Amino acid sequence: MTRGNPDPATQTATPDTVAIRWLGHAVQLLDQRRLPQEEHWLTIEGAAGVAQAIRDMVVRGAPAIGISAAYGVALAARGADDQDWLREVEVSVEALAESRPTAVNLFWALQRMTGVLRQCHSREDAVARLAEEAVAIHQEDLAANMAMADLALEAMELSRPCAILTHCNTGALATGGYGTALGVVRRLHEQKLLKRVYADETRPWLQGARLTTWELARDGIPVTLNADGAAAAILARGDVKWVIVGADRITANGDVANKIGTYGLAVLARHHKVKFMVVAPASTVDMSLESGRDIPIEERDGREVRQVGGISVAPEGVDVFNPVFDVTPANLIDLIVTERGVVHTPEVTGMHKLFD
Amino acid sequence: MTRGNPDPATQTATPDTVAIRWLGHAVQLLDQRRLPQEEHWLTIEGAAGVAQAIRDMVVRGAPAIGISAAYGVALAARGADDQDWLREVEVSVEALAESRPTAVNLFWALQRMTGVLRQCHSREDAVARLAEEAVAIHQEDLAANMAMADLALEAMELSRPCAILTHCNTGALATGGYGTALGVVRRLHEQKLLKRVYADETRPWLQGARLTTWELARDGIPVTLNADGAAAAILARGDVKWVIVGADRITANGDVANKIGTYGLAVLARHHKVKFMVVAPASTVDMSLESGRDIPIEERDGREVRQVGGISVAPEGVDVFNPVFDVTPANLIDLIVTERGVVHTPEVTGMHKLFD
Repeated sequence: MTRGNPDPATQTATPDTVAIRWLGHAVQLLDQRRLPQEEHWLTIEGAAGVAQAIRDMVVRGAPAIGISAAYGVALAARGADDQDWLREVEVSVEALAESRPTAVNLFWALQRMTGVLRQCHSREDAVARLAEEAVAIHQEDLAANMAMADLALEAMELSRPCAILTHCNTGALATGGYGTALGVVRRLHEQKLLKRVYADETRPWLQGARLTTWELARDGIPVTLNADGAAAAILARGDVKWVIVGADRITANGDVANKIGTYGLAVLARHHKVKFMVVAPASTVDMSLESGRDIPIEERDGREVRQVGGISVAPEGVDVFNPVFDVTPANLIDLIVTERGVVHTPEVTGMHKLFD
Repeated sequence: MTRGNPDPATQTATPDTVAIRWLGHAVQLLDQRRLPQEEHWLTIEGAAGVAQAIRDMVVRGAPAIGISAAYGVALAARGADDQDWLREVEVSVEALAESRPTAVNLFWALQRMTGVLRQCHSREDAVARLAEEAVAIHQEDLAANMAMADLALEAMELSRPCAILTHCNTGALATGGYGTALGVVRRLHEQKLLKRVYADETRPWLQGARLTTWELARDGIPVTLNADGAAAAILARGDVKWVIVGADRITANGDVANKIGTYGLAVLARHHKVKFMVVAPASTVDMSLESGRDIPIEERDGREVRQVGGISVAPEGVDVFNPVFDVTPANLIDLIVTERGVVHTPEVTGMHKLFD
């Protein structure tokens, strides 16, 4: 495993993998575009820098995007003018909201920060209270991941170790720590209930190859990397009992937007009678949307498919369809796990009960 | 589109894309590892060089492998000792047979060449007759592709243009010319029945990104490249009416081994009520094997997944599962097209009728 040259910040980090650190006057983000070749931390002191980092995928993963945006709002107050601070922070909130369209955690975190902002009486007050709220959002996300891992293991009712297949990266790098779907994988490993996790490489951004294998290897969790196209052959072999993924937005009927390829995996899981679980904090649930049809799906530049690591793998200018997410209908999902509880065979009633 | 610096051989080529040229004293292979960046032709004068080129995937695609191996046998006779020529050619046949395990066209072509070899009375005789047989194998493959395109269009009964989704490269580069599945796509385009072809990039070797888009763009056929994981989202949109793929081996019950990812696509096609067609010459059919369970599936080095274009995209040493092919059971296939006829909803009886 190549770890590059760790900088002093890395050397003082806790043994657990983290991707976001709050320094009080700045937020540090582990640049996920450069993993696994090197662990490079960016120190960002303003909201515009955070918005840019989200847009450029320095930080990615729905919960990590929400947490970073919250820190961005806190930084906006620090950098604002004493007179015009409220308007300046509001403008920053708008810029952060425009950084990426699909993950609802971003809008949820910004709404929560705006709620606190409205109660602040001065810039100084805002600096303190917004930082406090961002740290709370971060810590609550970590706690939610721990709670979800417990709830998931209980619902899985495993009597013996099994293999898991996962897609994209939903671990410490995608969240406030520990992970959503990978949090469940970590807990299974801790409980000696994990044979092995198969990690889809997850084209085009290769989050599985670059990030999931990296963070699992750090923790000594047995991981096997596979091309996305090999998932069906793996499920046909029979040792995978659960496909476990995260989510970028879950609608009121239990439909799930997640990384492109998730929907196909759900179809494959059903075909092979393998259970399909979605793990996401309640901040990922958007009860204002009736179904997955209403979720805006981001399409990114075709270069992400035409190139790998800056190298062209397709003729220049060839037309590309590059949707970042797809929608898995609720009827292909066996279990949605949030920190507020689990929903079996999700539909509207079960989803509403989470928020009773 | 980047075409590199065409060498004189390229400039004198026919306008149709070809990947294999017979020079009489040598075979020329278009190095498919270097496409689309450059069109580099390797001139190979011996059977060992041909075996190496097949192993290293200079040439790939089941029919193209068979044709190349046939030329390899012809070259073995040219390079052999006047006394010991028969044994020398037989040793070369064995080496060629060991180059890759899954595509049966390789063994079929070698068997046909061996049949001719047994009738030869001298090295000189063998030089002439083996070259003639290899050229015949090459030309018959091209003719078979043309015939399959006609049969496929007839069976599709299209009344209006539709979109197609394909996997890997099954075109002129993978065959004696024109292509199997891409031959059907070409014919659809000629008949103004093709809206667009979606090309799975086909990890890990990226045949779709590197080769399919390249050869279709040369012919002005509308092609859109997508990550393999986007196929399900594309099928859900409704304009794709057929998934069309090639094959590396088809067993007596109609099971099909083809590039990894094909099986998953067949499951997705069935889920979306999209028709699934396999196009392959009769030389791909192995009636000696009862079912797909009997097909040896090649696994290649994990580096093919851990690296892209020589760049690491995953931690070094991470465990990789890299099967090159998977098996699609006959019950997920609507139509198998060979030059000997088509088989609807393939099973044993229908497959046997092809060879009556």
